[in-house]
Amino acid sequence: MSEVLQKTSDLLEKAALAKKAAAEMAKQSTEAKNKALRLMADQLLQEQDFLLTENEKDIAAGRHAGMSDSLIDRLQLDASRLKGMADALVLLTQLEDPVGEVLESWEQPNGLEMAKIRVPLGVIGMIYEARPNVTVDASSLCLKTGNAVVLRGSSTAIHSNKALVAAIHRALAKSELPVDAVQLIEDTSRETASHMFKLNSHLDVLIPRGGAKLIKTVVENSTVPVLETGAGNCHVYIDETANVEMAIAIALNAKTQRPSVCNACETILVEKNWAAAHLGKLVEALQEKAVVIHGDSFVQQWENVIPATEEDWGTEYLGLEASVKVVDAVDEAIRHINSYGTKHSEAIISETPENVQQFFMEVDAAAVYHNASTRFTDGFEFGFGAEIGISTQKLHARGPMGLPALTSTKYLIKGNGQTK
Amino acid sequence: MSEVLQKTSDLLEKAALAKKAAAEMAKQSTEAKNKALRLMADQLLQEQDFLLTENEKDIAAGRHAGMSDSLIDRLQLDASRLKGMADALVLLTQLEDPVGEVLESWEQPNGLEMAKIRVPLGVIGMIYEARPNVTVDASSLCLKTGNAVVLRGSSTAIHSNKALVAAIHRALAKSELPVDAVQLIEDTSRETASHMFKLNSHLDVLIPRGGAKLIKTVVENSTVPVLETGAGNCHVYIDETANVEMAIAIALNAKTQRPSVCNACETILVEKNWAAAHLGKLVEALQEKAVVIHGDSFVQQWENVIPATEEDWGTEYLGLEASVKVVDAVDEAIRHINSYGTKHSEAIISETPENVQQFFMEVDAAAVYHNASTRFTDGFEFGFGAEIGISTQKLHARGPMGLPALTSTKYLIKGNGQTK
Repeated sequence: MSEVLQKTSDLLEKAALAKKAAAEMAKQSTEAKNKALRLMADQLLQEQDFLLTENEKDIAAGRHAGMSDSLIDRLQLDASRLKGMADALVLLTQLEDPVGEVLESWEQPNGLEMAKIRVPLGVIGMIYEARPNVTVDASSLCLKTGNAVVLRGSSTAIHSNKALVAAIHRALAKSELPVDAVQLIEDTSRETASHMFKLNSHLDVLIPRGGAKLIKTVVENSTVPVLETGAGNCHVYIDETANVEMAIAIALNAKTQRPSVCNACETILVEKNWAAAHLGKLVEALQEKAVVIHGDSFVQQWENVIPATEEDWGTEYLGLEASVKVVDAVDEAIRHINSYGTKHSEAIISETPENVQQFFMEVDAAAVYHNASTRFTDGFEFGFGAEIGISTQKLHARGPMGLPALTSTKYLIKGNGQTK
Repeated sequence: MSEVLQKTSDLLEKAALAKKAAAEMAKQSTEAKNKALRLMADQLLQEQDFLLTENEKDIAAGRHAGMSDSLIDRLQLDASRLKGMADALVLLTQLEDPVGEVLESWEQPNGLEMAKIRVPLGVIGMIYEARPNVTVDASSLCLKTGNAVVLRGSSTAIHSNKALVAAIHRALAKSELPVDAVQLIEDTSRETASHMFKLNSHLDVLIPRGGAKLIKTVVENSTVPVLETGAGNCHVYIDETANVEMAIAIALNAKTQRPSVCNACETILVEKNWAAAHLGKLVEALQEKAVVIHGDSFVQQWENVIPATEEDWGTEYLGLEASVKVVDAVDEAIRHINSYGTKHSEAIISETPENVQQFFMEVDAAAVYHNASTRFTDGFEFGFGAEIGISTQKLHARGPMGLPALTSTKYLIKGNGQTK
């Protein structure tokens, strides 16, 4: 068999096993699924030595290949991180099982009794980078929602991923759930990923988790439906009537609390009269927090402000940099956001109800805030108890995705012989 | 400019106009949208002569090209069909506007007031065949739900489509809605369709409407999210305890009432004891209605039954043909359906509650029936008042899609300065 055929056959074989397991998974009780999650937690703790030894192989290979410290940090497992994973598994058992929930029910005039219930999606393909925690996190979320999962992680985490999946399999073997519900594609070649993108016959959805480039590749090449998560070019708009202290506090929080994440603010838009009176304070506060400012001509009157280019408005800095622009009014702010934003999270700071209402209605984004930071766009902050990711697409799920995002629906119809 | 560039630029220009119009559409009141629908209805009736003259050009070209009578029939407009379209537009004004509906609202412990509301999807791309009625139907459903639409119909209906869109534009010009919300791509080449499949920057979703081949092409080539509708290889399973008259009546209805549609039954599965006692009656009833039967070895004891091949189990006949198979019990029926079905509509006829429950839980389909015909899978039969299509995929919408399937959601969050 040629190498390509062999790779293809490994993916197909595992996807077929997952598909078969998905049919079993759909029948599992909440109790059986929670028991399996607890067994997985126990197994991770029991197998700590094995897991850390295998992880060390990836770390060594990474260092040898000159991987950056921040990437090594993402890849690294230790006792406390394993404990964190185990704790998350136990927490997941406490969340409501969405499967079986009756979303709607009604009777038709001909007597048909209609019900729409939540069911698992089926087989979920996860494509992700060198974070071994995603292996456990994604598996557990898929199992809790009655799905099977096909995992395709990074080659740089392959020893860790194989060890974690082996431990998960040993836990599942003690449970009522099918062991085959979690499949790891060990071949991390491009060809296999490309094949996964088109495997509509076996995969119900693909979820990419990682950087903007990975997500773009999956979105642009997949015919399997994709749950797109990710990129956030988020704005804070400070309106004419914004409370000065509040506006500065929110802009600072949104920009500096954790600048590397998707719900951090990248551009601050400021209404011209507010700018004339208070922009100096905002610039000072940002610069005190070491934020490099790319400003328009008005903002450039302050020292150390770099002239903003057209490119800046579309840039997700993901660091201590921000672009700042003075706008005429809420209309211009909305136009700017809808032109350059990524439909993630957008905030208005204002005491003018009509402007807030206009901003709420016209800004096209998953989450729109009034007098609060964009940093709240997060499954845990929304009270979902778990997060699959933050959807920036408009189909199926938008914004922070909790467990229900991993489900579909089914109509169950009871009759007594109806043909009309 | 080269021809390809010109084509591309026409699509891009129209898609950009639609995107701009979508932002306007999202702000429209239910009243303004309904007024536009009524104006469209009036316009179609007023312009009847023009519309029928233009349609006649397509009909003449179709006949000249040797188009079949059934295709000519699909393409043909007449006074009564135009009246039907106008009536449908008026009916649509009576349906509830899903946009703005508050789906959930709650308060977080930190005082943030959270609300999840329905919003339009944005720009919807429709790819369809030679049915000019889809031009009006799709436009009106998209407008009612606050979306803009980019229509790409068949070259064989181009005169009809141009005339219908011109009439729609004249109606929209009298309304408060942006005329640009409805765009017709006049270039019906493959290249333009291929470009539409990848136009993620401008299109939020693609909806193919037509035969299995069209849908497959769109699904297999699109990186824009697709709402997949269509293929139905539906089954009726007659269980051991099925009421004989009811089972025969339902099987006959599901197979023969309108065999060309996706919710018609293609394979009848019969439990072995029921088959031993009653299959003759079913075969006779089907043959009386001119149904050609492809049967397994047991079924072949009756005259004029053609031996069923492996291929038959996967065939959507869409005509007066059915495959019939005897199965051991409900388990085998479920396995058969999950192997060969298209996850559309599946029915069990039974008086054994446990078997019904097992069938409901284990059959993987958009709609599962007990003691009723698969023919009910339809937006109007479900009481939705309108139908975008019947989704056979698991993301976003599954089964008959009413107006809410053309919407997304948005979180609106009100704070008073929260940063944590």
